[in-house]
Amino acid sequence: MKFACVLAVLVISGCSAEYKPTWDSLDKRPLPSWYDEAKLGIFIHWGVFSVPSFGDGFLAEWFWYYWKNGNPDAKYFMHKNYAPGFTYADFAPQFTAEFFDADKWADLFEASGAKYVVLTSKHHEGYTNWPSDSSFNWNSMAVGPKRNIVGEFANAINKKGALRLGLYHSLFEWFNPKYLEDKKKNFTTDTFVTSKTMPELYYLVNHFKPDIVWSDGDWEASENYWKSKEFLAWLYNKSPVKDVVVTNDRWGKEALCKHGGFLTCQDRYNPGTLQKRKWENAMTIDKGSWGYRRNVDFKAYMSINELLQKFVVTISCNGNMLMNVGPTKEGTIIPIFEERLRQMGEWLKLNGEAVYSSKPWKHQNDSMNSNVWYTMNGNKVYAFSFSWPDSGILEIGSPIVTSKSASIELIGGGSSLTWEPLSPTGVGIVMPIVNPASSKAKWVYVFRLIGFN
Amino acid sequence: MKFACVLAVLVISGCSAEYKPTWDSLDKRPLPSWYDEAKLGIFIHWGVFSVPSFGDGFLAEWFWYYWKNGNPDAKYFMHKNYAPGFTYADFAPQFTAEFFDADKWADLFEASGAKYVVLTSKHHEGYTNWPSDSSFNWNSMAVGPKRNIVGEFANAINKKGALRLGLYHSLFEWFNPKYLEDKKKNFTTDTFVTSKTMPELYYLVNHFKPDIVWSDGDWEASENYWKSKEFLAWLYNKSPVKDVVVTNDRWGKEALCKHGGFLTCQDRYNPGTLQKRKWENAMTIDKGSWGYRRNVDFKAYMSINELLQKFVVTISCNGNMLMNVGPTKEGTIIPIFEERLRQMGEWLKLNGEAVYSSKPWKHQNDSMNSNVWYTMNGNKVYAFSFSWPDSGILEIGSPIVTSKSASIELIGGGSSLTWEPLSPTGVGIVMPIVNPASSKAKWVYVFRLIGFN
Amino acid sequence: MKFACVLAVLVISGCSAEYKPTWDSLDKRPLPSWYDEAKLGIFIHWGVFSVPSFGDGFLAEWFWYYWKNGNPDAKYFMHKNYAPGFTYADFAPQFTAEFFDADKWADLFEASGAKYVVLTSKHHEGYTNWPSDSSFNWNSMAVGPKRNIVGEFANAINKKGALRLGLYHSLFEWFNPKYLEDKKKNFTTDTFVTSKTMPELYYLVNHFKPDIVWSDGDWEASENYWKSKEFLAWLYNKSPVKDVVVTNDRWGKEALCKHGGFLTCQDRYNPGTLQKRKWENAMTIDKGSWGYRRNVDFKAYMSINELLQKFVVTISCNGNMLMNVGPTKEGTIIPIFEERLRQMGEWLKLNGEAVYSSKPWKHQNDSMNSNVWYTMNGNKVYAFSFSWPDSGILEIGSPIVTSKSASIELIGGGSSLTWEPLSPTGVGIVMPIVNPASSKAKWVYVFRLIGFN
Amino acid sequence: MKFACVLAVLVISGCSAEYKPTWDSLDKRPLPSWYDEAKLGIFIHWGVFSVPSFGDGFLAEWFWYYWKNGNPDAKYFMHKNYAPGFTYADFAPQFTAEFFDADKWADLFEASGAKYVVLTSKHHEGYTNWPSDSSFNWNSMAVGPKRNIVGEFANAINKKGALRLGLYHSLFEWFNPKYLEDKKKNFTTDTFVTSKTMPELYYLVNHFKPDIVWSDGDWEASENYWKSKEFLAWLYNKSPVKDVVVTNDRWGKEALCKHGGFLTCQDRYNPGTLQKRKWENAMTIDKGSWGYRRNVDFKAYMSINELLQKFVVTISCNGNMLMNVGPTKEGTIIPIFEERLRQMGEWLKLNGEAVYSSKPWKHQNDSMNSNVWYTMNGNKVYAFSFSWPDSGILEIGSPIVTSKSASIELIGGGSSLTWEPLSPTGVGIVMPIVNPASSKAKWVYVFRLIGFN
Repeated sequence: MKFACVLAVLVISGCSAEYKPTWDSLDKRPLPSWYDEAKLGIFIHWGVFSVPSFGDGFLAEWFWYYWKNGNPDAKYFMHKNYAPGFTYADFAPQFTAEFFDADKWADLFEASGAKYVVLTSKHHEGYTNWPSDSSFNWNSMAVGPKRNIVGEFANAINKKGALRLGLYHSLFEWFNPKYLEDKKKNFTTDTFVTSKTMPELYYLVNHFKPDIVWSDGDWEASENYWKSKEFLAWLYNKSPVKDVVVTNDRWGKEALCKHGGFLTCQDRYNPGTLQKRKWENAMTIDKGSWGYRRNVDFKAYMSINELLQKFVVTISCNGNMLMNVGPTKEGTIIPIFEERLRQMGEWLKLNGEAVYSSKPWKHQNDSMNSNVWYTMNGNKVYAFSFSWPDSGILEIGSPIVTSKSASIELIGGGSSLTWEPLSPTGVGIVMPIVNPASSKAKWVYVFRLIGFN
Repeated sequence: MKFACVLAVLVISGCSAEYKPTWDSLDKRPLPSWYDEAKLGIFIHWGVFSVPSFGDGFLAEWFWYYWKNGNPDAKYFMHKNYAPGFTYADFAPQFTAEFFDADKWADLFEASGAKYVVLTSKHHEGYTNWPSDSSFNWNSMAVGPKRNIVGEFANAINKKGALRLGLYHSLFEWFNPKYLEDKKKNFTTDTFVTSKTMPELYYLVNHFKPDIVWSDGDWEASENYWKSKEFLAWLYNKSPVKDVVVTNDRWGKEALCKHGGFLTCQDRYNPGTLQKRKWENAMTIDKGSWGYRRNVDFKAYMSINELLQKFVVTISCNGNMLMNVGPTKEGTIIPIFEERLRQMGEWLKLNGEAVYSSKPWKHQNDSMNSNVWYTMNGNKVYAFSFSWPDSGILEIGSPIVTSKSASIELIGGGSSLTWEPLSPTGVGIVMPIVNPASSKAKWVYVFRLIGFN
Repeated sequence: MKFACVLAVLVISGCSAEYKPTWDSLDKRPLPSWYDEAKLGIFIHWGVFSVPSFGDGFLAEWFWYYWKNGNPDAKYFMHKNYAPGFTYADFAPQFTAEFFDADKWADLFEASGAKYVVLTSKHHEGYTNWPSDSSFNWNSMAVGPKRNIVGEFANAINKKGALRLGLYHSLFEWFNPKYLEDKKKNFTTDTFVTSKTMPELYYLVNHFKPDIVWSDGDWEASENYWKSKEFLAWLYNKSPVKDVVVTNDRWGKEALCKHGGFLTCQDRYNPGTLQKRKWENAMTIDKGSWGYRRNVDFKAYMSINELLQKFVVTISCNGNMLMNVGPTKEGTIIPIFEERLRQMGEWLKLNGEAVYSSKPWKHQNDSMNSNVWYTMNGNKVYAFSFSWPDSGILEIGSPIVTSKSASIELIGGGSSLTWEPLSPTGVGIVMPIVNPASSKAKWVYVFRLIGFN
Repeated sequence: MKFACVLAVLVISGCSAEYKPTWDSLDKRPLPSWYDEAKLGIFIHWGVFSVPSFGDGFLAEWFWYYWKNGNPDAKYFMHKNYAPGFTYADFAPQFTAEFFDADKWADLFEASGAKYVVLTSKHHEGYTNWPSDSSFNWNSMAVGPKRNIVGEFANAINKKGALRLGLYHSLFEWFNPKYLEDKKKNFTTDTFVTSKTMPELYYLVNHFKPDIVWSDGDWEASENYWKSKEFLAWLYNKSPVKDVVVTNDRWGKEALCKHGGFLTCQDRYNPGTLQKRKWENAMTIDKGSWGYRRNVDFKAYMSINELLQKFVVTISCNGNMLMNVGPTKEGTIIPIFEERLRQMGEWLKLNGEAVYSSKPWKHQNDSMNSNVWYTMNGNKVYAFSFSWPDSGILEIGSPIVTSKSASIELIGGGSSLTWEPLSPTGVGIVMPIVNPASSKAKWVYVFRLIGFN
């Protein structure tokens, strides 16, 4: 087998210099393994939209767009609080970021158990969070923070051995006149792409060397207009991150859910069934928004139970979860977000063996108990239960005993549990007595099954 | 005894129109009973200090004072973020309160289980949260919100049958020149008191009719300078709230912890032993600050366990707890505060019988188990346990069985528990088996003891 | 005569310590002579109104008042340029005064030939241009310039030997609630006067020692309400400026044009006939406004000819002229004002002998030539002609030759002129040939008549 | 000769469609005659620099550049008045233009006697005074005025039959990263020119149809980098203004004072001797600045005498004068500028025959009297005297009598003057007696000479 392995390496290595700007070729690139092993990432939406920081899912980071398209809430908000004629660009000086401390953020991300962090380097507003040469006086060094946000962020992430850097980048910009001109001409011209999008995207990769290029804003035009395939071929063949970089599927209106790297398909994608190709559930702790909302209703924040359940379903079905947090314009991550991240970290610290580097099992959702989901890691199967049976017996239908020394443990719940096989398949597990005040096992209960299939 | 009682009532009633401006007389006024029954109040610190909203316990709502007295953090913060010469008064226009919705606040306070809410009508900065006639252009109608904050707040609280209104009022103002002149003259003049403090305080009572006048900022001068006793005599004899109003003890440097209404003694006062006179533990969910701090460390927020433990110790020893929340300059109560308030409400909804209208028991802290505290209500004794015994048996030393039909229940824990008396006193309680995922009893476990003494 | 004189001095000196707070007594005080000798003063209107700095005579420094009373121009201006809810107090932070250099101003005032300068220490808006102890956070040290405007101004004026300091002070304040309360009670209470007006006015005199106290804002209430007579008695008897101070007549609604010091009667008062009692024509270079108007029409600025004609008529009839200039919020005096002041100075440098220390002559306006006015100084009569006769002969009707050596000269026009007496009175003066490009005599031509009566 | 003339016209007309992008060809284009006839233009410098509006000739409209290059005045100004980190882009929101009324401006320009007006459409700061598609969020519609300044201006000018529109345009932008990149590469790349400069310049011409394209900011690079010759060929051959447009010489570092349209050579160019090629003296009423300076010293403003003398020397030597005015950030032209413009207009209304459509005479400066300069118009010679002789006789050396009916008049000075020839050439003119108070002839005296050569 060793020989074959070397051969394989040679072949891959040989191909690696030759990805062509076609989906056929690009889709053949194996996803670097770190990504699947990581399971959990954190998404950060931060920009000028963090200043109005207002409204529900139709506003927030999309505030500019919906305001200009007549959204009555946005119009009333502007009318009531600002002078007539106030423009979106006028918000930028208030994007002060005076409390932004990238190292403090990185400490928190690390504590959450996430393994990568994706920051909006530029959202659809076109404002760049680094001093872009192609965004004169509409970037974070010229107006607002007067700082290289992406640069400080990248440094802090890189200092953490356990975290990888991702950069979100929007291909289109709602109101960039150059984009609107190309669009008006049905994308038969590409001034915007050649003078803005591509120079900035290449710069981001060359300069910040991200492990993830998280593309977005592609949907109005084709991959040909965006020159996405050419970019990806360069990214995979020649860029400084060619061996480790991971990308998503938002590279043109035909690419979504089909081509590129991992699939994102749609926001908060979480199909609930096993997907062959690696995918990502990009979702938000604030259920209604990616950007921070100052006027958010408390109920919009997911509880730790909700978060863990989404997460378990996701990884069970071959997905990663990219969990979004919206910082304030001052540069803080408000305590409720921090609480959720630290709760995730607490749970992952206990249950990480069932998560990191795990693989989908042959079953995802249990055949008898819809509250139970599975992963596997090596020869161990992990069952995640969202509830605790009042009866004291947890019955699950999918596992089959394959060994005499089969055993079941509740992680964080002490010694081996008593159980017995059910017929035709499955087991009944006698729940342990736990101290409800101090039990380490909580929220989602994870059982380690050895000797099952 | 009945006859004596009637006589006593007559005497009190006769006296009630005759409180004199002496502590002897004023201290005789019985505290209106609603206050002791209420147990939990919410404190709101909101003002211009909510704009810088910066720093630890030496700053935050005291920002102005420490900045002007050379605090290096404050000076650096100002130097770094503001133009030279920026004054504290320049913060006021940014106290925008655009999201302030008093009814929404009142809904939340009601849900928390608190029975009264105390708002800073004016803190030491002198800025009044209502359009005071004595605070020309330094009030919430002239600069900042352009709203009558106290008025909107009072209306919203009054709409809730279950909530009573309290108004915090600082007697002194750090930098009011009129105050500083009186102080310079060793308080031999009283221009400030007669032209500012007293007109405003009388107005607050006459106009907003608060059930609590929560005085503060008294400590530099005597009660004579402040004319506190005259005010209290009026408040108790003639004011529109004379029959229901409650006050505290911050009425002059000799009054604290001695005279007035309930005693507050010092911030976060919580003696841990029974106090004869009714007292209040004014404390903060953000352990380091009363005013909101934008740059707060997450760890500063108390967990629900910490809060409930403070609360139980407080009421066990004859105190009320006044739990502080600092809103943002925009007028929002951030989600972590809301979460804590709703958790309190959830616990109080289950365990209210052990709290509201309860009285201290003969014991406060259990004689064997330092994690257990008591109250009583009618013939029931309530034991609050901060932990759950790993052994499954909770042993407590203070209760003595007095009845054959004595029983013990865990509130929210199902049917009567098995227990047995210990020798010489106390009982051993067999803990029930609870579902750790769905048990209503949580955080602090409350046992209802019937037939014990 | 010497003996009588000494007696008189004794009597005056004796009385001087005894002015009583009655008009009978106060009106007996002789006006310190420097004032009549000075003839020209400069008036400076500067305050928060210099920020909106908008509108015609009904707005400008009265902006706040008319805006709040529904003036449509003001309302539209606010609607168009500011956020809803913007208050007048919100203008204060923009009163930046960054270019205010009192010494530079004083140089200019000195160059203008004026002998005194009157600054608005506080206008009807109530904002004090010094850090008043009675105007907490509504003064020039707390918001806006962060400087002691009156103090810097007074120092600069005092450094100039040739200039005297005057302070304008408004008794009332449109929107001060304390004033409005007194007013509502028909001025039967005087809280405002005792807590605000008088403390500030006494402070101004004691601290800045002005040579003029220029009162205003008196008209809604009587002198009794204002305690004006008591103030004046103190000012004349005991104040640090008792021997030199001059005041006007705006001390209560019955005082105007009757009592006090010099009479001002109404804005831009210029009766055109000799007045027995010394008076002052307080007028404006910008015909429509006292405060600076950013949107002023150029035509509103008086030409130097207009200014000099107003001035000559004024001094001819026993008045002084107080010529107003409105600085910008930045602290600059715009060039057109400077040009006018320097033109005045140029003219006064040449013609000062006909102006300073002059007295009204027996005639003011010439009996034949309405363009000619008179003053006298010692034994010289001065005729001021507003025009130059096309005929080359200036005929004037009032002078009568009384000496064989009578002579007439045009000041700045070279040697003695040829003239001949007219019958029955008057003279015909042969105009000299002057160089129209370089003649020093210009704008208003002044003739020195010796040996005429 | 008639025949030849017709031929020439044909040739020119034939060529007019064929200007080639070479100086040889472009320089052959005849300057449209309206320009030489106009003589006087007004230059308007307005942009974000009008916000700091500070400093002497090294700052003002060059504020950004010198500040960033360490100018100590600029650094101190920023340090003292702004928060640390305040950027130049932060000034833009304060460019409010709330009083900008283009029609009012046009009225004033018309009244000044000027025949064209040149506005800075974009200065070196790169901020465009119209909503440029190539200047996303750095233009007058997005930040600051929220108006199309160039558009409103152009409309107002076009409504005035007597005025022509000019647009100033800076080729380079100090801090545009795209420009700096090209520069760093020694202008071997031209990304900036193709993506910014040229698209904007073509747009300006196509959209606003200016009669003058006043180029600037060329000096760091050659005409080849700027693609100037290609632009001019298009401008002359195909643009909508090809028949009337006039340009200057600032099209590349070798072009200045050599190629293009009229020559400007250097700021305030005024050689004092006849120049063969038409030239322009671009100068400023505020001697020290093009942009408005809030802190300007009054002495910096030219008097009307100075202005007229510069103007007369200029037109006498074949130049036009472009007289600069700097509006305030609010959109006003301060009164001193208006006074000068109206004085120019008053003088030109009287003396226009000696100016408009005049030609240089054979002499420019008089041979005897250095205060006298000449123009001619048809068969009339005009002598402009800057002074009035004290002797009453003006002696000038250059004119020679050529007709018996020769006559001399002072324009605005009544009937024909007495004069006599001097020997060998020249005349002595007996000055009329004028009324110094009402003479229409003033400042610069213009004599109409008929029958002289």
